[in-house]
Amino acid sequence: MTIVVGFVPTKEGRAALARAVEEAKGRRTRLVVINSNRGGRDYDDTATRSADEELQGITADLEHEGLEVEVRQLVRGNEPAEDLIAVAAETDADLIVIGLRRRTPVGKLILGSNAQRILLDAPCAVLAVKG
Amino acid sequence: MTIVVGFVPTKEGRAALARAVEEAKGRRTRLVVINSNRGGRDYDDTATRSADEELQGITADLEHEGLEVEVRQLVRGNEPAEDLIAVAAETDADLIVIGLRRRTPVGKLILGSNAQRILLDAPCAVLAVKG
Repeated sequence: MTIVVGFVPTKEGRAALARAVEEAKGRRTRLVVINSNRGGRDYDDTATRSADEELQGITADLEHEGLEVEVRQLVRGNEPAEDLIAVAAETDADLIVIGLRRRTPVGKLILGSNAQRILLDAPCAVLAVKG
Repeated sequence: MTIVVGFVPTKEGRAALARAVEEAKGRRTRLVVINSNRGGRDYDDTATRSADEELQGITADLEHEGLEVEVRQLVRGNEPAEDLIAVAAETDADLIVIGLRRRTPVGKLILGSNAQRILLDAPCAVLAVKG
């Protein structure tokens, strides 16, 4: 059994990762983290380093608890949804964890295209948590 | 801790209930099933009775395992999403389980309005499973 989660250093990304870690501990299952942190132009070097350290801390914590954890870099040129779905299929995952942004700045509800795609196209169940 | 699930006697409804039962067993947590079966005009008496028996079987199984399970009838006049969200808030649930229909008859991907509303407005994480 495997849980797949995408990591981005945002509020909803951290919420998703935290929940995935909790689920992996509770189920004693393997966790695959897809690190999308280096893919965009939105983060500076300091933020990237800080996010990488954050991820290393979480990995060390899980390994300390005897759980298998694997961090993969995002495959460039793919949408995050494609990467998550492909990795979930490849690892025969039984769960993908995603983070949802609750609202736009004007207060409108949104469900982003990546979230919709993952919910509909994932080969397994999807756990959606709020940031 | 509580898991909330809506029960409808469809393929995706059964998938959601089965997964909710599995999660409740795995986490040793209480399960609240909202029975929407009597709300619509789509089911005949025989189907309703059969669905009720199905639900009773599941309830008995969970109680046999020492888990607390509660079945609530749908409050008439509300959208299923409203009922699930209200019950999740009231019971301080940590998970709502929903079933997604994978495609329309013409093969287009859909995410129904109830599913969208639950994903966005739920006070807790939402686990979406495919029918």
